Amino acid sequence: MSWHKIIECVPNFSEGRDLEKIDRIVAPFRGKAGVKLLDYSNDEDHNRLVVTVVGEPEALRDAVLEAIGVAVQLIDLNHHKGQHPRMGAVDVVPFIPIKNTTMEEAIALSKEVAAQVAELYQLPAFLYEKSATAPHRENLAAVRKGEFEGMAVKMQAPEWQPDFGVAAPHPTAGVVAIGARMPLVAYNINLSTQNLEIATQIAKNIRHVNGGFRYVKAMGVELTDRHITQVSINMTDYTRTALYRVFELVRIEARRYGVTIVGSEIIGLVPMEALIDTASYYLGLENFSMQQVLETRIME
Amino acid sequence: MSWHKIIECVPNFSEGRDLEKIDRIVAPFRGKAGVKLLDYSNDEDHNRLVVTVVGEPEALRDAVLEAIGVAVQLIDLNHHKGQHPRMGAVDVVPFIPIKNTTMEEAIALSKEVAAQVAELYQLPAFLYEKSATAPHRENLAAVRKGEFEGMAVKMQAPEWQPDFGVAAPHPTAGVVAIGARMPLVAYNINLSTQNLEIATQIAKNIRHVNGGFRYVKAMGVELTDRHITQVSINMTDYTRTALYRVFELVRIEARRYGVTIVGSEIIGLVPMEALIDTASYYLGLENFSMQQVLETRIME
Repeated sequence: MSWHKIIECVPNFSEGRDLEKIDRIVAPFRGKAGVKLLDYSNDEDHNRLVVTVVGEPEALRDAVLEAIGVAVQLIDLNHHKGQHPRMGAVDVVPFIPIKNTTMEEAIALSKEVAAQVAELYQLPAFLYEKSATAPHRENLAAVRKGEFEGMAVKMQAPEWQPDFGVAAPHPTAGVVAIGARMPLVAYNINLSTQNLEIATQIAKNIRHVNGGFRYVKAMGVELTDRHITQVSINMTDYTRTALYRVFELVRIEARRYGVTIVGSEIIGLVPMEALIDTASYYLGLENFSMQQVLETRIME
Repeated sequence: MSWHKIIECVPNFSEGRDLEKIDRIVAPFRGKAGVKLLDYSNDEDHNRLVVTVVGEPEALRDAVLEAIGVAVQLIDLNHHKGQHPRMGAVDVVPFIPIKNTTMEEAIALSKEVAAQVAELYQLPAFLYEKSATAPHRENLAAVRKGEFEGMAVKMQAPEWQPDFGVAAPHPTAGVVAIGARMPLVAYNINLSTQNLEIATQIAKNIRHVNGGFRYVKAMGVELTDRHITQVSINMTDYTRTALYRVFELVRIEARRYGVTIVGSEIIGLVPMEALIDTASYYLGLENFSMQQVLETRIME
């Protein structure tokens, strides 16, 4: 039952249409000790496959390397079209510390995988996010700018040398960004107003770029079917910017407009700690530890 | 990693002092596939050992049977003294459904173990709580009344025949109560008053016996060190009487006295669902499923 350390990986592959190829890319995550495939979904418009997998560090590393090898073999970016920007057969590979692991360990794992893909598959690798070797390489969008087609020219610039591999994209598989980051929580708060300006203004007030919380990205969205609006939020580090804090601040901001929160929603997966911390706040729990959670103990 | 079904068992053994015997009783729960020992603690005054273990149904059943066998061999109730009431070497064995299991499965497991201990160890077994075969046998205190010393006489009455085994206690190991129940959550709410009467009155208002919530037991307690009082609560089914509902009702009741809640605390273990349900209430989560919790998926 027990994996002592758990890391999550969410590799994005540039194949969203050919189900046989998708099966072959996902296969290395199936039936392996120390690895558990949680989810995979392909988008035909994006022509992209997103895999969610957890595992013990070494077993996860080996499975991810194997899947990258399959993708490099199967996907030719010269013939790839889709709505989502991409620079490689394996576009991005984030490692996320989940249990009994530090960010430092996730960073070390990302660097090990990046070194290996360059050596095994001649796939140049950029380290991004927490693994980045320079501030201008932290943001994935900045690394990916120019995409597959522009990468040969871009990589001639000294500031866009890859961290591993030669300074030219793989002829069919391009390049890959590999790094470590905290778990993302996609969290939306619904407002009792149809006025998008209000949702947008609240989004601005709470997000980092405009002076709000450090680990919040947000935008206003119309939910036309329901005749309401929504503050659509990406929580980029729920351990430092807590869910309940964002919820309560949105409530406070909405008050200015006579608007209330009608509900909220979590999209996709959320670590239990993000919600247990929220319960702990509202109940005013004293001396509470995650070690008191039965599932924490079962997973140990 | 994955156990499909998880059941918890919290057997209570009548040995709280002899560490060598305690080690031998606990040994069957160590190092077995499909079984995980979460905790065990012995109390010298109570002369009692409480073990918390989880596992897959069959593996858990076998380990519990083995431990009961050891306890029957090592513990002689004729020489047992302690503050806690007891009727057997193994006093009580509750099975608790935790994951992908129904109460019916936990009941079936409890009956299987009860039948086996009677056959293997000549230990008469009473089914109690959800496994009870008659209403008067549901309550453990009712079954245990008379304790080890009074059991020979008690068991001559038709209504106190054991469910398995002969109608006389084992000469050294007495009898055992085996059953199924929901997880207990020990939850205390602290009040901004030194007045024990207020805590006691609120406890009465919220508990089942006096007209309160169906799955709440509660009493008022003084926390003399902190100069406050507490409503000390046993939540006997958090899936039907939710934690947040009790918290909010205590707040509402306290208002009558101008008293506020200064905090609350969870004693021992709590299933993540009890706290995630609380977070879901306060955030007004729409369409939320436990399948969105990363740890649920990892444990699947």
